[in-house]
Amino acid sequence: MEIPPVVIDRLPLYTRALSTLEEEGRDVVSSQELGTLLGVTPAQIRKDLSYFGRFGKQGRGYNVRKLLDELHHILGLDRQWRMAVIGVGKLGRAILGYEGFGPQGFRIVEAFDADPKRIGQRIENLTIRDANDLEKTLLKNPVDVGIVAVPAEIAQNVIDTLVKCGIRAILSYAPIPARVPPGVYLKRIEPVLALQSMAYYLKNSPRSTAAAARS
Amino acid sequence: MEIPPVVIDRLPLYTRALSTLEEEGRDVVSSQELGTLLGVTPAQIRKDLSYFGRFGKQGRGYNVRKLLDELHHILGLDRQWRMAVIGVGKLGRAILGYEGFGPQGFRIVEAFDADPKRIGQRIENLTIRDANDLEKTLLKNPVDVGIVAVPAEIAQNVIDTLVKCGIRAILSYAPIPARVPPGVYLKRIEPVLALQSMAYYLKNSPRSTAAAARS
Repeated sequence: MEIPPVVIDRLPLYTRALSTLEEEGRDVVSSQELGTLLGVTPAQIRKDLSYFGRFGKQGRGYNVRKLLDELHHILGLDRQWRMAVIGVGKLGRAILGYEGFGPQGFRIVEAFDADPKRIGQRIENLTIRDANDLEKTLLKNPVDVGIVAVPAEIAQNVIDTLVKCGIRAILSYAPIPARVPPGVYLKRIEPVLALQSMAYYLKNSPRSTAAAARS
Repeated sequence: MEIPPVVIDRLPLYTRALSTLEEEGRDVVSSQELGTLLGVTPAQIRKDLSYFGRFGKQGRGYNVRKLLDELHHILGLDRQWRMAVIGVGKLGRAILGYEGFGPQGFRIVEAFDADPKRIGQRIENLTIRDANDLEKTLLKNPVDVGIVAVPAEIAQNVIDTLVKCGIRAILSYAPIPARVPPGVYLKRIEPVLALQSMAYYLKNSPRSTAAAARS
């Protein structure tokens, strides 16, 4: 059965909400409450989870720990994923120092750059490798995910090379749409989309009291 | 009428698809085709747009240019938005150099940092200001959006200060959930969520031929 991509995209939000509930010592949560936490209807939550089997008992809610374990297993978060960063300029360095990946099982194990001044430097316990050796290195030491942090004009080229190396999951920070063949998954970090939807609220909703007091 | 936030979040995707169609010289697009481009049903597109009035004629599709103009107007993308970046470490510098904001009407006009070595430096035509003067500066020269690029442990503090300055839209790169009062909009850049949904496909779908050939 083909599961809609939007459902898969929601599962990480479920695991995050459940993790928070677990940290608060909660054992059980209803689809109503989970829905309120996530801004979706309880029916949507029941439908989303129904793709993966039967969770919870009618009228009893979900066991937080059990559902979290199941979702971790479904999403493949019960293992480590190896990642390579391509491009170690300001952005790539920020990515190498990002504290959010490790605790979730995503580990950066390789970093590449084409600038001779950067190659060989050590950053965050990694030695920056020559981007010209990208293919050779990744064929020898495969990674699961490629993170693209190169300038826009060479991003598609780098993505094509990653695909050639057999990498099937690519996270791109480049501000361009990018093409990948079927069977390869690409997600873009798109701060502009977030800004655009917030612009709607700035334009259409009344100002907060703080802002009103200011003007 | 309250428009569901998920609808607002989809509108920027619509404008992006329509912009691409316009660049390709297309005059008209059907909800079927737009749906295929965006991975949503034609019915969903018609429903989303119905919140904002009547677009297109039954059986005739949408006029690309006209719908794009309307959506730009609805989203408030027919004007410039002023932004301040707080935190000018590696990540903040990468944000200051990001090429995707300007063409979409989002302009960074202020940058702040607490590090005395950074204060007064010029980066991308901006002079980095003292983060201790954040409130004073933003009350005098208001901005529309605050971009948070500080370490996780001080992010909530910075967000609280931005809210006190009357800022109603915050884009946070810090890997923490953050609290804002009602009427203030916060979006997080969350690379881990993107990685987690890709992990599902890595775990559950067959390997590409390239990857298979490799192993």
